[in-house]
Amino acid sequence: MRLAVDAMGGDNAPESVLQGCITALDTYKDLQVILIGDKDKITPYIEQSDRVKIIHTTTVIDADDSPVKAVRRKKDASMVQAVQLVKDGKADAAVSAGNTGALMTAGLLIIGRTRGIERPALSPMLPTMEGKGFLLLDVGANMEAKPAHLVQYALMGDVYMRNVRGMDSPRIGLLNVGAEAGKGTELAKAAYEELEKMPLNFIGNVEARDLLDGAADVVVCDGFSGNLVLKTIEGTALSLFALLKDELTSSLKNKLAAGVLKPAFKRVKNKMDYSEYGGAGLFGLNAPVIKAHGSSDAQAFFSAVRQAKTMHDEKVIDTIRETIEATKKSEEQL
Amino acid sequence: MRLAVDAMGGDNAPESVLQGCITALDTYKDLQVILIGDKDKITPYIEQSDRVKIIHTTTVIDADDSPVKAVRRKKDASMVQAVQLVKDGKADAAVSAGNTGALMTAGLLIIGRTRGIERPALSPMLPTMEGKGFLLLDVGANMEAKPAHLVQYALMGDVYMRNVRGMDSPRIGLLNVGAEAGKGTELAKAAYEELEKMPLNFIGNVEARDLLDGAADVVVCDGFSGNLVLKTIEGTALSLFALLKDELTSSLKNKLAAGVLKPAFKRVKNKMDYSEYGGAGLFGLNAPVIKAHGSSDAQAFFSAVRQAKTMHDEKVIDTIRETIEATKKSEEQL
Repeated sequence: MRLAVDAMGGDNAPESVLQGCITALDTYKDLQVILIGDKDKITPYIEQSDRVKIIHTTTVIDADDSPVKAVRRKKDASMVQAVQLVKDGKADAAVSAGNTGALMTAGLLIIGRTRGIERPALSPMLPTMEGKGFLLLDVGANMEAKPAHLVQYALMGDVYMRNVRGMDSPRIGLLNVGAEAGKGTELAKAAYEELEKMPLNFIGNVEARDLLDGAADVVVCDGFSGNLVLKTIEGTALSLFALLKDELTSSLKNKLAAGVLKPAFKRVKNKMDYSEYGGAGLFGLNAPVIKAHGSSDAQAFFSAVRQAKTMHDEKVIDTIRETIEATKKSEEQL
Repeated sequence: MRLAVDAMGGDNAPESVLQGCITALDTYKDLQVILIGDKDKITPYIEQSDRVKIIHTTTVIDADDSPVKAVRRKKDASMVQAVQLVKDGKADAAVSAGNTGALMTAGLLIIGRTRGIERPALSPMLPTMEGKGFLLLDVGANMEAKPAHLVQYALMGDVYMRNVRGMDSPRIGLLNVGAEAGKGTELAKAAYEELEKMPLNFIGNVEARDLLDGAADVVVCDGFSGNLVLKTIEGTALSLFALLKDELTSSLKNKLAAGVLKPAFKRVKNKMDYSEYGGAGLFGLNAPVIKAHGSSDAQAFFSAVRQAKTMHDEKVIDTIRETIEATKKSEEQL
């Protein structure tokens, strides 16, 4: 498998990106990586070989670049070239920890959508208390959605959880403000009815309060709502950890006791750390494109690479296309 | 001030409700309460007096009652009678810890809207790390909203923070998925433009990640989004505390260290406890109606009573009406 890697994207690039790639190359003997970025900054960590190719560029898309402008004007940027390699058939998938909006735009404009999918969805795995995690889509590829889009998100999420996470019958939930049918916005009500008709293990509405308890394996919503939920989870966890840190270091006695508990706190933090699950997939594109978290360390970037590789090896894109086509056919026959 | 209290609403009714009222009666010498509920269950805690009236009923609205049906059919229910007393001019405000949807319905159908307000908003104060808290509205009185509704929410929130929380120039934020103007749904984009024109200290978009850091004093959004954010904060905090508890009691050594830190953990929990700030106001009704948290203890119910009293004493409803009318007039003159 040939993976195009934006070596310059993310807060810890290129070091964490390259160390993640080194681990991946050690782990997967059939993996080849094409690193796009500043050769002078890459070669201290990794050299060219029969499994490592470096394409030199010093152009990067910054975190605050406007996505559409950046993708159109910076065609030689490391991220844009990574995506272009996939389009040109020179790579099978792309991974970047850079500007999320730019990666979505590049994926959509350059690689394009899978046949039958109207809207791609940005789809991270989020942590649950028992450790299995759940897939939330969409978290912002599209601000607004129609019921049919949420159904497509559900079908894509179902394929992903089966093929990549090895789940038998993923529980699909609709993000909503109450458990009963008939709750929520017009979108939620209509999507509920559509989802019930699908050949999915649709378990109905799930409330935001129950997400981290593992209320569902796949949770679908419009991108605005998904982004709010994602950012609220992040913000609440960060605030709580900050508060705890303040309180636990407020006296010598507390510091000593907190020292004893350090491994316990570390385990709690790790359980909340969704970089373990990989990055956020851009589901609905015609090839696997993975957005690694901007603050990815080597381990998190490795997880994103593993995710891209599994999506490729398990033919997730083909299965999504076939599933969507089969659904459309059975709808036409009704 | 005469306060109508649904003595039977909430998980800990009537005990916590009545103990909260006893504290309030001790604190505010000009307060009279009218308790509606089962006399046999009320009198063990509190007796009739010149400041305490009891109206007997055994009908209650349950947590799982359908709001509209319950309000229409159970006219003698403790909650409905509390709201009716306000409508009839026999009480100045009402507080209930019961079924949220039913209280909103009763408020809207029986008391009605303040002149000029198209949609009431359910408006809780939520905790911030530095302890000031912020007002989030709407969290579910209306699932969908138009830009004009968000502007009215902002105007009501501004009046509330000035008159009840004593703030000079509350920072008004629009809940959104990015800080820059032009982000988000069509609703968010249009509301941003409208809010900029208002005589408010509008600070632009605020992201869900920054809410608990005190990014704004008043945050406006549609009820679906607000409910998601509220429930996600609750769920994340509960999950984290549960995880911590598991880890910190996993060995004797951890238990001992955690014992030392108990006061520190308690302080963190208290900072996240929004019952200290009072209940959720139903802003936009023609009288103060406060929804106390369903799991209110005596202290939380007292906070809700204090909030109702301050809203009455500071003439919040009148100020909201005058503000909305002044805004409309200045728009007509343009």
